[in-house]
Amino acid sequence: MAIYSYDRLVKFVQAVFIKMGCPEADAITATTVLLSADLRGIDSHGVARLSGYVRLWEAGRINAKPNLRIVHETPSTAVVDGDAGLGLVVAPFAMKIAIEKAKQVGTGWVSVKNSNHFGIAGYHAMMALQEEMIGMAMTNASALVAPTFSVEKMLGTNPIAVAIPANNQPSFVADFATTTAANGKLEILQRKNQDTPIGWVQDKEGNASTDANILKKQGALLPLGSDREHGSHKGYALGSIVDIFSAVLSGASYGPWAPPFPAYIPMPENQPGQGLGHFLGAMRIDAFRPAQEFKEHMDHWIERFRNATPAPGYEKVLIPGDPEREMETIRIKEGIPLVDAVEQDLILVASNFKLTL
Amino acid sequence: MAIYSYDRLVKFVQAVFIKMGCPEADAITATTVLLSADLRGIDSHGVARLSGYVRLWEAGRINAKPNLRIVHETPSTAVVDGDAGLGLVVAPFAMKIAIEKAKQVGTGWVSVKNSNHFGIAGYHAMMALQEEMIGMAMTNASALVAPTFSVEKMLGTNPIAVAIPANNQPSFVADFATTTAANGKLEILQRKNQDTPIGWVQDKEGNASTDANILKKQGALLPLGSDREHGSHKGYALGSIVDIFSAVLSGASYGPWAPPFPAYIPMPENQPGQGLGHFLGAMRIDAFRPAQEFKEHMDHWIERFRNATPAPGYEKVLIPGDPEREMETIRIKEGIPLVDAVEQDLILVASNFKLTL
Repeated sequence: MAIYSYDRLVKFVQAVFIKMGCPEADAITATTVLLSADLRGIDSHGVARLSGYVRLWEAGRINAKPNLRIVHETPSTAVVDGDAGLGLVVAPFAMKIAIEKAKQVGTGWVSVKNSNHFGIAGYHAMMALQEEMIGMAMTNASALVAPTFSVEKMLGTNPIAVAIPANNQPSFVADFATTTAANGKLEILQRKNQDTPIGWVQDKEGNASTDANILKKQGALLPLGSDREHGSHKGYALGSIVDIFSAVLSGASYGPWAPPFPAYIPMPENQPGQGLGHFLGAMRIDAFRPAQEFKEHMDHWIERFRNATPAPGYEKVLIPGDPEREMETIRIKEGIPLVDAVEQDLILVASNFKLTL
Repeated sequence: MAIYSYDRLVKFVQAVFIKMGCPEADAITATTVLLSADLRGIDSHGVARLSGYVRLWEAGRINAKPNLRIVHETPSTAVVDGDAGLGLVVAPFAMKIAIEKAKQVGTGWVSVKNSNHFGIAGYHAMMALQEEMIGMAMTNASALVAPTFSVEKMLGTNPIAVAIPANNQPSFVADFATTTAANGKLEILQRKNQDTPIGWVQDKEGNASTDANILKKQGALLPLGSDREHGSHKGYALGSIVDIFSAVLSGASYGPWAPPFPAYIPMPENQPGQGLGHFLGAMRIDAFRPAQEFKEHMDHWIERFRNATPAPGYEKVLIPGDPEREMETIRIKEGIPLVDAVEQDLILVASNFKLTL
């Protein structure tokens, strides 16, 4: 385990995106989005994925100089064609459009096609906060999840993020996969050679499993709720809604046709759309009630929930976004720890591009 | 167990709402919404609740002749004051506004304050389907749910419904509480004197419990995910988002202050807003892509998911809305079964209003 300062990683990641051919402004945006995951403690979605993006670019599946454009719009909606660009660049472009539309008519909703992985959903949702808006972001992803009663993998971990501003309290920021456990949690257990709890995954026959490597053996992640008795049909519905809003509404590839992130996995045949899809939304607070009044009530909401009576053994009840914000404060100051495998991976990327980490 | 035809229940329920003083058009709307729950098999939210609405009206907490009005709006948003009316009437009024706004600017989003229970969320979301729109509906409700790490009940079962039109396939209609199990599921077990599975409820100290009567002993329902290890923080976040969109955005009472449905439970003190809150949304399909094209892709999506390989022992993978639609077909034809307790309850309502069931 080595510790890297945020600034050092910023310089390196920007240099990599520049080497890939990204315009400087795009390289800066992509780096900010990617590293926001490391800062917030979502290690699976940060620099650990940099080599994956590079390999997609090498395979010709990422266009470093995309022509991002609106292909359809109304006063409160748009569809953006990401032109196979980095999702890390496409999603902020689309979120800015959602914010501009919200300024004009109260809310803005943008569905995106022909994109790639966009980092953490929370980053894009949080772009709305400084505008006194509520932000939402979701994306589909390659199929790792079996719907209730299925052994076939049909959905990605399809995350949903919602960011809501408060006044003196920090913002409410929820950002979660619509599965019981995100794939990144499995990767951590794989590295430690540990089992998963029952309820995270199933084997290829649909039996409960605790094998953290089960995805490599035709097993599947389970929707939030784990099994029918505990509401997995709700997690399946949520993941489906994300898939439909992100990909069917925009014209991206949905369900089992969503493009895989690992470049060595072939693209599913008979693609019904183009690339991955995202869905981004912004709602102006004062399109509903005066922003100051709302934010004071959010303070009241947050304070009341934070002071709910905790269960014995727990110090306090958390507000969505608390753990990530605390992690960010620590990592900005103390640096970002990289496990050996990730560090080696970055050294390899550096050497291929004749850069130094 | 007795069977009543839909038409017979319609006549009776309308007569009750008329006796409460509802204008005839409102009585018809409220009856249609309430009985849509019985038709769709969500028995806890239909005529089983009629006496509860009557008692709220007797307690002066439901206004049978509300002055429903928009108190704030932009081209794509509105806040509606429900004037303490029946949620069964207020929510369709608000959904119509969302649909009208979507016709004008692509999407419409309406947050509602000063309302009461609105029946099943799915009904309101489905109002958008005939307009070639995606519909969404959510509501907060009185606090029965303990957030992750809490023993205090802070949130209602706060359901989310999303209805999405298809072409030849029936629509995708998800409608679910953001808890592992809805309260209605507990009521069924109470009547049968049976235990709940582990993961539905906890006792007053936050321990896992299987007692279907635990809510009467200071226990709580659990957010979707059941415990931290299985993602209950995600269910807690979802329930919170519903609470904030429905009540903080509109000026209704949120969190533990949401008004209780049983009229004998006193209103929580220091209400931060007025009544219950709802959030309704409509997105015009052709604000994103041609409606016919979208609906054909939805057919493709639905067919692909319905034909996913089922786990051994299961016949097929379901699409959200399948079980409720099948139930509706049966109950329209064969009638609606009422358990004895519900029938007795309706007979009492009938006798108080000098009506016959």
